[in-house]
Amino acid sequence: MSNVTVFGAGSWGTALATVLAENDHNTLLWSHRQDQADEIHLKHTNEKYLPGTVLPTNLKATSNMDEAVAHAEIIVMAVPTKGIRETCQKIMKTLDRKLIFVHVSKGIEPDTLIRISNIMKEELDESVVQDVVALSGPSHAEEVVKHHPTTVASACENLESAAIVQDLFMNQYFRVYTNEDIVGVELGGALKNVIALGAGVSDGIGFGDNAKAALITRGLAEISRLGVKMGANPLTFMGLAGMGDLIVTCTSVHSRNWRAGNLLGKGLKLDEVLEQMGMVVEGVRTTKAAHQLAAKYDVSMPITEGLYEVLFEEQSPKEIVEKLMLRMKKTEMDGKY
Amino acid sequence: MSNVTVFGAGSWGTALATVLAENDHNTLLWSHRQDQADEIHLKHTNEKYLPGTVLPTNLKATSNMDEAVAHAEIIVMAVPTKGIRETCQKIMKTLDRKLIFVHVSKGIEPDTLIRISNIMKEELDESVVQDVVALSGPSHAEEVVKHHPTTVASACENLESAAIVQDLFMNQYFRVYTNEDIVGVELGGALKNVIALGAGVSDGIGFGDNAKAALITRGLAEISRLGVKMGANPLTFMGLAGMGDLIVTCTSVHSRNWRAGNLLGKGLKLDEVLEQMGMVVEGVRTTKAAHQLAAKYDVSMPITEGLYEVLFEEQSPKEIVEKLMLRMKKTEMDGKY
Repeated sequence: MSNVTVFGAGSWGTALATVLAENDHNTLLWSHRQDQADEIHLKHTNEKYLPGTVLPTNLKATSNMDEAVAHAEIIVMAVPTKGIRETCQKIMKTLDRKLIFVHVSKGIEPDTLIRISNIMKEELDESVVQDVVALSGPSHAEEVVKHHPTTVASACENLESAAIVQDLFMNQYFRVYTNEDIVGVELGGALKNVIALGAGVSDGIGFGDNAKAALITRGLAEISRLGVKMGANPLTFMGLAGMGDLIVTCTSVHSRNWRAGNLLGKGLKLDEVLEQMGMVVEGVRTTKAAHQLAAKYDVSMPITEGLYEVLFEEQSPKEIVEKLMLRMKKTEMDGKY
Repeated sequence: MSNVTVFGAGSWGTALATVLAENDHNTLLWSHRQDQADEIHLKHTNEKYLPGTVLPTNLKATSNMDEAVAHAEIIVMAVPTKGIRETCQKIMKTLDRKLIFVHVSKGIEPDTLIRISNIMKEELDESVVQDVVALSGPSHAEEVVKHHPTTVASACENLESAAIVQDLFMNQYFRVYTNEDIVGVELGGALKNVIALGAGVSDGIGFGDNAKAALITRGLAEISRLGVKMGANPLTFMGLAGMGDLIVTCTSVHSRNWRAGNLLGKGLKLDEVLEQMGMVVEGVRTTKAAHQLAAKYDVSMPITEGLYEVLFEEQSPKEIVEKLMLRMKKTEMDGKY
């Protein structure tokens, strides 16, 4: 039994805290909002993010940062990608011991082009970080709290830390696999949002399952190509954090990225889409980052490039998809189409 | 411009004949039913299989086997898997020259455990077979005749023949990629039906997207493992005939295999499912073949085995899925779970 603090009480942070509490860990969920912390702590619900779910009575919550940091033997970071740096800075203020940090975010910072675990290592002093572990896979929070079977990867260069996180979360309905390829797991989780945007665009134009399957298949091939150049194991992209997560994201109408793509495919401009969505669409930022990475590592990423042109250069989605179809080379294995 | 005969006027045969006719090939579609051949030839429709579609006026049809054979410079076989041997035998009777045969079937014969191209080579004399090419990928016929973008692989050990077939079909909306790994393309197309059955079972039980994504991801890993032992290139399983086709089949409610699995997941027995479906469910035969292949090649295929137990040993789907979740090993890369 461990003392775990989960930072971030959105749907995924709350679902993971629920898994931990059900595994009998002494779990504290930190929210930046006092009223939300009170609701979770006293009423055992989080109606905004997991409506209709009764949370375990042994799950505690707080909005007090010092209390949250003092409690932790292990820290799980489940705040939005944009809030990672700031939350790490706050944690640094009082943390006085070396811990494993788990993160569950999926993104790449535009311009700096660094992965989440490295963002965290920039903000956290070496003296407090034993290891950063990425937890990623096909996992709707709503299904996890219903105990529907779910599988994720726990990734760290140091497999011992990945295994500690695996043991922490693993139970009958929540299966965790270790993977020492954190580069691939983080890139797979981030870049799959680009392909999900593309799948949404194809559906929005009115194309069918054939086109979407082609986009997903060729999309996975191109993000895998980039990943390998950045040091990832290509097999990771066939695994849970790659293909598994990609399938869920591209075929679920609940996916924000798919929905944003869908609106683009119907002819809306990016600013209209973002206004209509009213929330962060991670894949838009990640498309910009992927476009920059493709140039930096000299990797051919035609689907990413096409999407970039739709998002930031006001190109017509239909023309881009048609250009993509014609531009693809003729052999499945040449790695260039 | 080539003289092509397509044998089999189901939805896929008719759609492929339409692509060929639109590419200005002199295309003849053979149906075993006189009335269907007349409908296609004279009315330019095939209401039973492609309702609402107007077929090209230059697409001809016949039910005369000798005429169909005499016409062909290239033969496309689009008859049901069970009819392949018989149709080849009939073709053999009058064929007096060496041709490329294309097949579009997805299955493995139980007991003999051979792939479609080898079934054809058993029935067709060497003197008439230049090469057998497999054409396979994520492709609903209904979308192809609407000119929705579609991609498939053209596979043959002899890349020249694969390229001839590529040139035959390729156009703006129908993209063909060559692949010399016919073993992988045929196995991917066949074995994906086993995983689609499994995905249907999971949905039928009432599990969610997380469980389905896990099944698809781990399912692709296990059919890929078998394929490699049988001589396939593992990359083929990440391609159009593997992952691409798998995604379409597992996420489309139109897929027969998914539907059959769904009914099994809801608690029906196999004979009840087959009765209710009223048509061939290829994945059921293929599960038996895959079970036999796993034993023959000594490959661990837990999802296939679980399905085999549900289909042929009346095991409870829910218990099997739960057993699968627990039995999976702990590392993503160990290749054994």
